Amino acid sequence: MARFRIGVVGGTGYTGAELLRLLSVHPSVELGAITSRSEAGRAVADLFPNLRGKLDLSFSRPDEARLHACDLVFFATPNGTAMKQVPELLAAGVRVIDLAADFRIKDLDLWERWYGMTHACPQLVAEAVYGLPELNREAIRSARLVANPGCYVTAATLGFLPLLKNRLVAAESLIADCKSGVSGAGRGASVAMLMGEVGESFKAYGVAGHRHLPEIVQNLQLATGQEVGLTFVPHLLPMIRGIHATLYARMTADSDVQHLFEDYYADEPFVDVMPAGSHPETRSVRGSNECRIALHRPQGGDTLVVLAVIDNLVKGAAGQAVQNMNLMLGLDERSGLDVPALLP
Amino acid sequence: MARFRIGVVGGTGYTGAELLRLLSVHPSVELGAITSRSEAGRAVADLFPNLRGKLDLSFSRPDEARLHACDLVFFATPNGTAMKQVPELLAAGVRVIDLAADFRIKDLDLWERWYGMTHACPQLVAEAVYGLPELNREAIRSARLVANPGCYVTAATLGFLPLLKNRLVAAESLIADCKSGVSGAGRGASVAMLMGEVGESFKAYGVAGHRHLPEIVQNLQLATGQEVGLTFVPHLLPMIRGIHATLYARMTADSDVQHLFEDYYADEPFVDVMPAGSHPETRSVRGSNECRIALHRPQGGDTLVVLAVIDNLVKGAAGQAVQNMNLMLGLDERSGLDVPALLP
Amino acid sequence: MARFRIGVVGGTGYTGAELLRLLSVHPSVELGAITSRSEAGRAVADLFPNLRGKLDLSFSRPDEARLHACDLVFFATPNGTAMKQVPELLAAGVRVIDLAADFRIKDLDLWERWYGMTHACPQLVAEAVYGLPELNREAIRSARLVANPGCYVTAATLGFLPLLKNRLVAAESLIADCKSGVSGAGRGASVAMLMGEVGESFKAYGVAGHRHLPEIVQNLQLATGQEVGLTFVPHLLPMIRGIHATLYARMTADSDVQHLFEDYYADEPFVDVMPAGSHPETRSVRGSNECRIALHRPQGGDTLVVLAVIDNLVKGAAGQAVQNMNLMLGLDERSGLDVPALLP
Amino acid sequence: MARFRIGVVGGTGYTGAELLRLLSVHPSVELGAITSRSEAGRAVADLFPNLRGKLDLSFSRPDEARLHACDLVFFATPNGTAMKQVPELLAAGVRVIDLAADFRIKDLDLWERWYGMTHACPQLVAEAVYGLPELNREAIRSARLVANPGCYVTAATLGFLPLLKNRLVAAESLIADCKSGVSGAGRGASVAMLMGEVGESFKAYGVAGHRHLPEIVQNLQLATGQEVGLTFVPHLLPMIRGIHATLYARMTADSDVQHLFEDYYADEPFVDVMPAGSHPETRSVRGSNECRIALHRPQGGDTLVVLAVIDNLVKGAAGQAVQNMNLMLGLDERSGLDVPALLP
Repeated sequence: MARFRIGVVGGTGYTGAELLRLLSVHPSVELGAITSRSEAGRAVADLFPNLRGKLDLSFSRPDEARLHACDLVFFATPNGTAMKQVPELLAAGVRVIDLAADFRIKDLDLWERWYGMTHACPQLVAEAVYGLPELNREAIRSARLVANPGCYVTAATLGFLPLLKNRLVAAESLIADCKSGVSGAGRGASVAMLMGEVGESFKAYGVAGHRHLPEIVQNLQLATGQEVGLTFVPHLLPMIRGIHATLYARMTADSDVQHLFEDYYADEPFVDVMPAGSHPETRSVRGSNECRIALHRPQGGDTLVVLAVIDNLVKGAAGQAVQNMNLMLGLDERSGLDVPALLP
Repeated sequence: MARFRIGVVGGTGYTGAELLRLLSVHPSVELGAITSRSEAGRAVADLFPNLRGKLDLSFSRPDEARLHACDLVFFATPNGTAMKQVPELLAAGVRVIDLAADFRIKDLDLWERWYGMTHACPQLVAEAVYGLPELNREAIRSARLVANPGCYVTAATLGFLPLLKNRLVAAESLIADCKSGVSGAGRGASVAMLMGEVGESFKAYGVAGHRHLPEIVQNLQLATGQEVGLTFVPHLLPMIRGIHATLYARMTADSDVQHLFEDYYADEPFVDVMPAGSHPETRSVRGSNECRIALHRPQGGDTLVVLAVIDNLVKGAAGQAVQNMNLMLGLDERSGLDVPALLP
Repeated sequence: MARFRIGVVGGTGYTGAELLRLLSVHPSVELGAITSRSEAGRAVADLFPNLRGKLDLSFSRPDEARLHACDLVFFATPNGTAMKQVPELLAAGVRVIDLAADFRIKDLDLWERWYGMTHACPQLVAEAVYGLPELNREAIRSARLVANPGCYVTAATLGFLPLLKNRLVAAESLIADCKSGVSGAGRGASVAMLMGEVGESFKAYGVAGHRHLPEIVQNLQLATGQEVGLTFVPHLLPMIRGIHATLYARMTADSDVQHLFEDYYADEPFVDVMPAGSHPETRSVRGSNECRIALHRPQGGDTLVVLAVIDNLVKGAAGQAVQNMNLMLGLDERSGLDVPALLP
Repeated sequence: MARFRIGVVGGTGYTGAELLRLLSVHPSVELGAITSRSEAGRAVADLFPNLRGKLDLSFSRPDEARLHACDLVFFATPNGTAMKQVPELLAAGVRVIDLAADFRIKDLDLWERWYGMTHACPQLVAEAVYGLPELNREAIRSARLVANPGCYVTAATLGFLPLLKNRLVAAESLIADCKSGVSGAGRGASVAMLMGEVGESFKAYGVAGHRHLPEIVQNLQLATGQEVGLTFVPHLLPMIRGIHATLYARMTADSDVQHLFEDYYADEPFVDVMPAGSHPETRSVRGSNECRIALHRPQGGDTLVVLAVIDNLVKGAAGQAVQNMNLMLGLDERSGLDVPALLP
């Protein structure tokens, strides 16, 4: 069977590395090109030695990568890069998945305020499909351009979604206390992410405002049709992979939320509603595309506690992008993703 | 100057080890006895090699330890042990600090329900002084029996206290999302706390109910004089020391909380209110007795976010116990505790 | 195509868990039974949540497991268990791979001295094939009983093998300075392996004598036909997976060892000789069956330094066992194992 | 009592931070100035929050720091900085301890080859006293300029020293397999030291040649008066603090090395020879100035194994510098350093 030809723009960060890991074993695609200005000419497996013997490809300069000949191109680039290059690719008939934030927010003013730049192709923002399959599966199948969700956003949205959809909680006072491993901060040189700085320590950051806040709110408002008020506090975990979202909502209607969630996600290949009383561990999804969710109502009170875990680099980034690719290319949605997490 | 003679019952856990570390350099005390049934006869420094050359003492059997000759005895034992031995010591004129939970909860029924045992000396529960100096400094000075607070409880209480005292927040819907390093689970053999199980992973636990919940509520109700409703979710961090409490409260009155906290804790030797916008790191208190607190009001909304960090073994256990001892013995409250945290 | 029916005895440790992870995605086998006395009746995915949705099987009691109906049975049990049960299975025509040490050492006296027990079926020790494919590939194919190598042994043997085979180094003064992640110590409850004990710390252990010493020596003596003198010092790393062997040997003949190793392992699917000057990282094999090797001759002196890394649970245990199974069942040796390591 | 006035040049790295931590509680000194070009004007406690409330000082520009008014100045700067500024300070009567490598190697050619620069004040190299108190205590007392040893060097030298001094081992074939926590790499922004790169992984580095090699060799040759051949392989541990040196030497004369070491270090305040058969853990010296050593002779063979642990930032850098300062200023050598390690 002919394989689809795939390109990756910007494959030197953790999201790119994870994409390459997943694509290197995907049965229906071949990697046509991986671009990087800084590493052009260098073997990919030299930078990421886990790919030695698995991926025989070198980084190429963007202008030499022949991305136009690809069926689909992933952008694993910093915010603000994809928006400049996507129009030309779409015009050439290439479909695109952007793992950055360029096309995630529908409200342009809001986007420009949070991201501090002027959008380079506002005309595509409306067309872009927000790539959370649990929200937009059908639209993703036929999309030319998919905006892959943020990592925190994926966990928080999946955890709140059935509640908002069914208007069971007070939408104006939601709380998302989220914790992420350090790979979420990327592979750029920085003092702040040295192991000497973040190992054996824990802290909140960005409490005043984090860019994933408006994205979560957008998702939840769409789901509920109401104004949503969310307090979002991200924290940094002294480990590499994993996001744990601890979500708090005040119940406004009585409901068997355990069954509600089980029904809501019954057909979802990558959402696992655990038995009542469970405490999902991030390691139970390490390297896998699952989101595991557990529900608690402590002391039988009004406050519902939702625990949701994902691997920030998989369901929170590259895995979800491959899930979207599978949908866009008409492949089995699970293709290349149906493996258990690495535990311990 | 004559030194006070101190005894430690049960010095083989992490709390005991930390107590020994702190007492070994305290200028005004000498360790008279450390008891352990399981390790009797063994040199303390053999079990805890950091004390080699610092503490020349062996574990002794409880019946041979001559605790009656001590000025003050710490119990670093499992819950339910101190309550059986304290009456005899008090009768002999020895003052006692219990680092376990036997005397923390004033409501006996509540205690027996959460701890699943019958209290062995209910008559002392009322007399026991709850050992949070920021709440009970004067009572501690003259106490015969001090109940040293729980680790999570210390962080959550100090973070909420000025708000409850001043009735600035909705007391019925408080949230404490707390994270602790693994040393909080103690030094007993278990599968659940193996590094292979808890390293590089993160999870919540005890969401249905954790014993520190009624203790936090007791503190806050005393402070505010109102009924308190608290959702408390503890989590386990893949690191050894440190607690981070992320506290959420809905403001019901306008207030400059930054100044409020600064004033409230202005004279406290071990509470550090950081500048507005700070994100305290647990490593900034590693090995030290400080509690660092920062305040945030994201997007200027109603929800106040309080971040509080302590070292669970120091301000959350042994350090606070030494602080209490200093008060009881008329020493400088800072004595033996006035050192910076180990960073990095 | 009919799948081979596989049994696993003792699937509750880390080696068992890893075996289940690998077998659950293997295209040519189905898991017929997993036994555990302590967990009988419990769903495997309840103990190992990474297998939720991937493995629909419960632990069964050994007597009810119908292991006789399996094509091949793995023993992931403590030392001394397999030797009691293997004869009956072999008699029933079932082939066996023992991941413990019961059949690794050919010299019975030596085995009994190091393992402190009497061997229960000495008659099978001679027949058992030592399951290092790089040494014994052909014999493994037709073996009824395979003794899967120790984790340190795999790394040290593969690193020294080409040198000893070609008699290029002084065999009487080899040094193997080895470091292992904590999962190598298993999943049994213990104080020594608590995260509070082994996190953020490093130490040697078993310097006086470790059971993998005679096994490495046996392999190397077979390879070289000479007496071998080896100093083996294992160390414990504050991480979960990975072994790094740093091997020292004095060159006695001149040789281009880089080419020697490249030639020696040219056809090996799971041995990767890295470019001269490389420093293999354990993460480059995390979750994968590779052994990566790099060679150094510092300052051009006599001392050769060989660096070899494996994942102790994969090439050092369960992965190598699956590689052996593939050989025994006539499958592609790479089947189920051809995935890149999880990095970062 | 008047306190000595101390200056620190370059206090923004980990060595500087540790120096500030130690000096902030030293009873006989006061910090007069801390210089940093990049952080001038910023409060030290803002950069290192563990010092909040402990050190009320801001970084100052080098030209404004009035270092001439100090009794003693530490250089915690990159290699090549101190050599440019030291002559002027010495001329002003200020004594200097350089924590970098500028004055460690007596052979100028050798230094220039390994450090890749021309020495700016070769005339001081001969005068500079190598600051390992266990080697040069008396010379340090009266030195104007002390070269503080490298971290690996301290551990390896102390472990080999009694053997070389007594000519008990083959000096031409020593092996030092050393492992260091990441803080040894400093606090500069880099990809290589991100937690995402070095967490949960282990590797050797610099096998071809590390700058601490000639320094160890210099120390050992001075001790033994013979030519020394050393293979030195440094490795990077996934933790923050601690060095573990595993040293291998072939015995050439019979000796009770346990007693030899105990005698040799009997009067040393910071060298702890542990009981025979011990396995020192790096955590047993975390935050403390001790070097703990244990000796093994596996299987009674010729190869002696010495295990030595230090905290790379304390005995391997800032603590040893304070020890040197105490000697130079006529203070108790233990002053400010006599605290137990932080365990767990």
